[in-house]
Amino acid sequence: MQPIFVLVRPQMGENIGAAARAMANFGLKNMRLVAPRDGWPNQKAVAMASGAGSILDNAVVTETTAQSVADCTHVYATTARPRGLTKRVLTPEAAMKEATGRIVAGETVAVLYGPERAGLENDDVALANTIISVPVNPEYASLNLAQCALLMAYEWRRQTVDVDQERVDFAKTEVASQIEVEKLSNHYEERLTDAGFFFPETKAEGMKQTMRNMWSRMPLTRADVQLLHGILRQMVRWKERG
Amino acid sequence: MQPIFVLVRPQMGENIGAAARAMANFGLKNMRLVAPRDGWPNQKAVAMASGAGSILDNAVVTETTAQSVADCTHVYATTARPRGLTKRVLTPEAAMKEATGRIVAGETVAVLYGPERAGLENDDVALANTIISVPVNPEYASLNLAQCALLMAYEWRRQTVDVDQERVDFAKTEVASQIEVEKLSNHYEERLTDAGFFFPETKAEGMKQTMRNMWSRMPLTRADVQLLHGILRQMVRWKERG
Repeated sequence: MQPIFVLVRPQMGENIGAAARAMANFGLKNMRLVAPRDGWPNQKAVAMASGAGSILDNAVVTETTAQSVADCTHVYATTARPRGLTKRVLTPEAAMKEATGRIVAGETVAVLYGPERAGLENDDVALANTIISVPVNPEYASLNLAQCALLMAYEWRRQTVDVDQERVDFAKTEVASQIEVEKLSNHYEERLTDAGFFFPETKAEGMKQTMRNMWSRMPLTRADVQLLHGILRQMVRWKERG
Repeated sequence: MQPIFVLVRPQMGENIGAAARAMANFGLKNMRLVAPRDGWPNQKAVAMASGAGSILDNAVVTETTAQSVADCTHVYATTARPRGLTKRVLTPEAAMKEATGRIVAGETVAVLYGPERAGLENDDVALANTIISVPVNPEYASLNLAQCALLMAYEWRRQTVDVDQERVDFAKTEVASQIEVEKLSNHYEERLTDAGFFFPETKAEGMKQTMRNMWSRMPLTRADVQLLHGILRQMVRWKERG
């Protein structure tokens, strides 16, 4: 199960379609609509939703917000401005973490999004158990419906899909072993000695150490090591050609 | 200092404007542009950026990506698809956490965004130190330029601005004290005893305990307590009126 995104009195079909795309990007499927201004179905929504049309096809439409969330056990309301209502307020991160736990426990969870211009009315917010407030820059807060849905869907996926925070993509290669790096280091040291690079004599040891340290600091792949051997060999060949 | 968002060969002015708004929503200011298709300045970008126009006014435009990031010490490239390049890949969260640390240490950090249709070219990605990959649904990945910038700006703010994960907004009231809740509980117990609610006798203690537990489970405010006293008093008055 997943949270249900409820668009309350959405105005522009384009924004409904964009919200569906935002949901699809993060693997969400369940949309409900409360009294969409231009009726339903809406061709502009379909055109914008390209590829995410099945979310629109399956969207349940009701007249009121209360009808839309009647079967839900926990309702979150996304709001930008303070409401003069006494209510718990969570960040998107905390809310989607909590929602994950509720859904695992068998609850049915909904997230309300208000109409484009004015946002949710207080009557809608009063139906919700918890408010979600996106921590925007207070001097410039202009998130639209689809952007708000995008951030919430992103946080949902972040809380539920285990993704490596860091990985390395290898293009047909793998990390070089210590011995390969050591051989590379020796190769450079020998040829550069021949070339008279380590001069003056008193600084030679320090220069060699700096170079050895450089090689070990680099995240070298086998392909890198081959390339660096090749560069050096070519310089020697070029020199020998005279 | 903040990360610099670099839009590489952006096509539609509207998307440049929307990216500026996304940045402003999360307090970011520094945009650079590489060879915008329709030249610069761009009236469609200005129209879309409403309120975030100063970001566009200050955007530095260059011909090449290399020129744009010449002064940067660490460059991140946002990409949706794998590139066949050996490179470190971070989530937006890990990348913005790392970027925060780099900036604190005095580094200049840039994030590259590709053109709308095709994304960054491999020549651009090869300039970057690290790839950022948004963990989208692999079966539906259609993030546009401004949406990608929005997620990155959101993560930047999440890593840098300390926000309470949970708070309660109080509308001209405060949490009720234990003694206030106890008085409320007693009030209900007395009146409901008068009304013959705790019946049969053998169940009376259990019913009272359940009710006391209910009151203490509720996150009651002073205003709630007054309202609940008022409800009960009114029911008594109504009864007495006969």
